[in-house]
Amino acid sequence: MAFELTSERKEFLKSNYSYGFITFCGFEAVNVAPGQLESRVTIGENHRQQDGFIHAGVMATMADHTAGYAAYTLIPEDHRILTVEFKINFLRPAYGQALVCRAQVIKPGRKILICEAAVYDQRPEGEVMTAKVLATMAAVPVKDLRR
Amino acid sequence: MAFELTSERKEFLKSNYSYGFITFCGFEAVNVAPGQLESRVTIGENHRQQDGFIHAGVMATMADHTAGYAAYTLIPEDHRILTVEFKINFLRPAYGQALVCRAQVIKPGRKILICEAAVYDQRPEGEVMTAKVLATMAAVPVKDLRR
Amino acid sequence: MAFELTSERKEFLKSNYSYGFITFCGFEAVNVAPGQLESRVTIGENHRQQDGFIHAGVMATMADHTAGYAAYTLIPEDHRILTVEFKINFLRPAYGQALVCRAQVIKPGRKILICEAAVYDQRPEGEVMTAKVLATMAAVPVKDLRR
Amino acid sequence: MAFELTSERKEFLKSNYSYGFITFCGFEAVNVAPGQLESRVTIGENHRQQDGFIHAGVMATMADHTAGYAAYTLIPEDHRILTVEFKINFLRPAYGQALVCRAQVIKPGRKILICEAAVYDQRPEGEVMTAKVLATMAAVPVKDLRR
Repeated sequence: MAFELTSERKEFLKSNYSYGFITFCGFEAVNVAPGQLESRVTIGENHRQQDGFIHAGVMATMADHTAGYAAYTLIPEDHRILTVEFKINFLRPAYGQALVCRAQVIKPGRKILICEAAVYDQRPEGEVMTAKVLATMAAVPVKDLRR
Repeated sequence: MAFELTSERKEFLKSNYSYGFITFCGFEAVNVAPGQLESRVTIGENHRQQDGFIHAGVMATMADHTAGYAAYTLIPEDHRILTVEFKINFLRPAYGQALVCRAQVIKPGRKILICEAAVYDQRPEGEVMTAKVLATMAAVPVKDLRR
Repeated sequence: MAFELTSERKEFLKSNYSYGFITFCGFEAVNVAPGQLESRVTIGENHRQQDGFIHAGVMATMADHTAGYAAYTLIPEDHRILTVEFKINFLRPAYGQALVCRAQVIKPGRKILICEAAVYDQRPEGEVMTAKVLATMAAVPVKDLRR
Repeated sequence: MAFELTSERKEFLKSNYSYGFITFCGFEAVNVAPGQLESRVTIGENHRQQDGFIHAGVMATMADHTAGYAAYTLIPEDHRILTVEFKINFLRPAYGQALVCRAQVIKPGRKILICEAAVYDQRPEGEVMTAKVLATMAAVPVKDLRR
């Protein structure tokens, strides 16, 4: 992609990534590039379910938000990203001390962007992919966001 | 369905519904019936995203967990439910004071259960469907749950 | 929905439904209403797979096309529907003498329409739902359709 | 993968790939490896829709079947693959003279296998990805396949 991000825009996207529910969940953006974003979370008891595994909703939220911000790197500054839909497959239970999510835009577009994301469980012996996502994002002008 | 739930099992499922990430998110089971579950969350600032809407991840987590517990009503007590995959469509932004999620099993099975769920935004003027989910759940014997 | 279809538009949609791959597959529109469409196919050997069941692709194609035409009932005449994505769950194998598909728009929109569809296997003892679909359709002006 | 396919098994899978609806649609397996399959179809008028594009159902059927056979390479000979569900995103319209589909198993399993597939439009100027699929397949003993 010829497209480039200014360092100001990169910093904005990284810091803007964490807000509200995402800050509450402890997710942080760690790398930003045009059409790509990588995020990370340190896992605590609040992220688990009854059997000690990391909750599917943690991975789904992380993948949705990371894919959304991968899309956000490619749109004009007066637009926002809304998730149209996503689908997530859980490949195996996650139980490690951290999760990393890597998302990329596989089809850019002015109004619709298609993204992929994968969630990796960080285990002592190395990282293992635990979820895979295929998502549709919409770029919406800020002025059209209304209740 | 001829199948019935004892009141003990109903109470167990309702109280077991909230644990770890789900308690953290504030979701509660409000109604349980064979193959069906309804949950609720009062929305706070921690559930929102940058533009004041309820985060897509809140709705995805709620729908996943509620569909999983709808499936959990139909399986033996020595089994657990793991999400194989789900797909969620967001119909419109949610911004109300609470969300309600209603899930039901549309195809029971010994090992695989297919579920639907819908999330409803509770607005002063009434409730509005904001997300729709189609999910695949696996029933796994507790003894086979391992890291 | 206050929206109404003229009988000319209904006839156009029903006859336009069958073309190219859809005619080849033998699918026909049998009922049209605003935001809704029902289609039918008589099953022959060409629709089956190795074990005698109706091929998953037959049901997927039928559900996609029927959902697309349910959306097509709600858009201006100078627009076309393109499928953005769909997800299909197969509930049980289908093997009957015909399939019926019923689709409806669950969220209309000027550019994006969200649809549901279900496929029913017609068996001597009655019809049984064999597949469920959740789909995202885009309404595109004819003039923007290009290679 | 240490797993290997005998040349007999490869030939069986390639020839078994085309049957019923798949033969009718003109799809053929061109490459088989453990956990992977590549298929091809020459496009004719019967594969198109009203605006001259290749029908979404053609790509969905091809991706489903190719992913299913990628899974079929990894299971015992007395088992069959049934599609539990798949999700397909259409990235751009396809209109070329042929399609190629490449599928691979991203998570093998004794009962459940998760697969990815992509469909590529063969254009004079080169191939372009037009659809991406994430699918869940079930391995079922032949003796349990029943109506």
